[in-house]
Amino acid sequence: MKGKVYLVGAGPGDPELLTLKALRLLRTADAVLHDDLVAPEILELIPPKAQVHNVGKRCGKKKIVQEEINFLMVALADSGLQVIRLKSGDPLVFGRAGEEIEALRRADIPYQIVPGVTSALGAAAAAQIPLTHRRASSALVFITAHQASGGEAANWCQLAGSGATLVLYMPGQNYSEVAAKLKAAGVAGEIPCAVISRATTPHQRTYRTTIAELARAPQLAAPTLLVVGEVVRFAHSEALAQEFAVTVPADTIRTDEDTATPVALFSDFPFGADFATNEEPSA
Amino acid sequence: MKGKVYLVGAGPGDPELLTLKALRLLRTADAVLHDDLVAPEILELIPPKAQVHNVGKRCGKKKIVQEEINFLMVALADSGLQVIRLKSGDPLVFGRAGEEIEALRRADIPYQIVPGVTSALGAAAAAQIPLTHRRASSALVFITAHQASGGEAANWCQLAGSGATLVLYMPGQNYSEVAAKLKAAGVAGEIPCAVISRATTPHQRTYRTTIAELARAPQLAAPTLLVVGEVVRFAHSEALAQEFAVTVPADTIRTDEDTATPVALFSDFPFGADFATNEEPSA
Repeated sequence: MKGKVYLVGAGPGDPELLTLKALRLLRTADAVLHDDLVAPEILELIPPKAQVHNVGKRCGKKKIVQEEINFLMVALADSGLQVIRLKSGDPLVFGRAGEEIEALRRADIPYQIVPGVTSALGAAAAAQIPLTHRRASSALVFITAHQASGGEAANWCQLAGSGATLVLYMPGQNYSEVAAKLKAAGVAGEIPCAVISRATTPHQRTYRTTIAELARAPQLAAPTLLVVGEVVRFAHSEALAQEFAVTVPADTIRTDEDTATPVALFSDFPFGADFATNEEPSA
Repeated sequence: MKGKVYLVGAGPGDPELLTLKALRLLRTADAVLHDDLVAPEILELIPPKAQVHNVGKRCGKKKIVQEEINFLMVALADSGLQVIRLKSGDPLVFGRAGEEIEALRRADIPYQIVPGVTSALGAAAAAQIPLTHRRASSALVFITAHQASGGEAANWCQLAGSGATLVLYMPGQNYSEVAAKLKAAGVAGEIPCAVISRATTPHQRTYRTTIAELARAPQLAAPTLLVVGEVVRFAHSEALAQEFAVTVPADTIRTDEDTATPVALFSDFPFGADFATNEEPSA
């Protein structure tokens, strides 16, 4: 009998932003294929008997190509295992889940998608930026910086210049280039923006500035997100103060005293046998 | 001593899509102010001693105005209580959290935002639509239908006609009007779209069609979302089959045999005292 693959979102960083469903599935997994960015505390929840494969890439340098991930995922499920493909954030947002789903369908492997908290929402919550606001923006756009060039540049400019709140995933370290692209798309220099680094982790840093000043922003550690739009004016005043700081201790911007979750407590959850019986492969 | 307010996302419907952090906070709440759309199974997790206020509105008919919600939230926290403002989906996406945050700041009430799985991600996961895809769309737009008219119409058209994947929150029941607005914005008639009703609940329904045929779609129960874009072609073939069905039994589109979670099991989690000690109000 074939196994089943669960494409599961691990959330934006804080292990406590895992969903209950993701936790249950992880604790009954036979094999886990995970991205680099998944928190170590989450990986500790995987049962010791399960196979664990890091199939991540970092800074664009792939350890493993997409076809190898697809092959491994299918092979493990074909051998009858319950496989968790664990992705940071949400699996359907910039996660190449589409290609993995196609591979699973071709191989006739049953699968299920378990959504997660995407990084933009984690970052906005941590920086206290309402992504939509009656007086500022009634639309929200998720884009990546690298689509600003090439065949998609026209659409990118249309989105970036629309006046909606923008969240740029993977903006990279070249802030002056990103700022130039945004200005070219029609974003005014005085529009506020915030670079949010390692959102919802104990290493989170936030730097708030404007498009005109973005080129002078400090280099913050990857992964980062760039939030652009009038809504950034509503960011917490403590985040505002960081315009004048090059590196900011995490505690100056954190309002959450408990993000570094004592995950050991999770392992006491009465999961496992009770839930596992509900989880028969459907093929 | 003042209490603290947590603006918490309850996720898209399935109670198992609650985050671990939301569950922990709910179980230690003194008062909960919740939207109508929060699942009853989630409300059952609230301790019996806590005050529970339904401050939701449904179909645009308000039971309580925003200012009253703000007032109640501030008053409860001012009296020293730990208050959970529980919103369906994510609190920062179309949730008026911006206004609640301003009220909390004015009253000098400490607060924290706990992100959740926004409805678009739940709906996409359930309908198996990759929201971004290398061969179809590298951008994602969240908009509401009602901004298509009025002062924001120009920006709405720019976003809707950009070629990005669109998720329309609250598209309403007048599909022919929505289709006309999308066509006016430049969306071609052959572009596929999907209406997803009550996503991630046992009552979920999905109807896949095209912009040209959208006006003839069956009326599905609120809340619905409309996903528009080439990525909808990647939706599961079982969802495709529903083009020909007016009402579809939930089980023909569900790949998840266990969405109707036995939430009673959650109440056995060893939460409460251990976690509550980490959760001192910060003011």
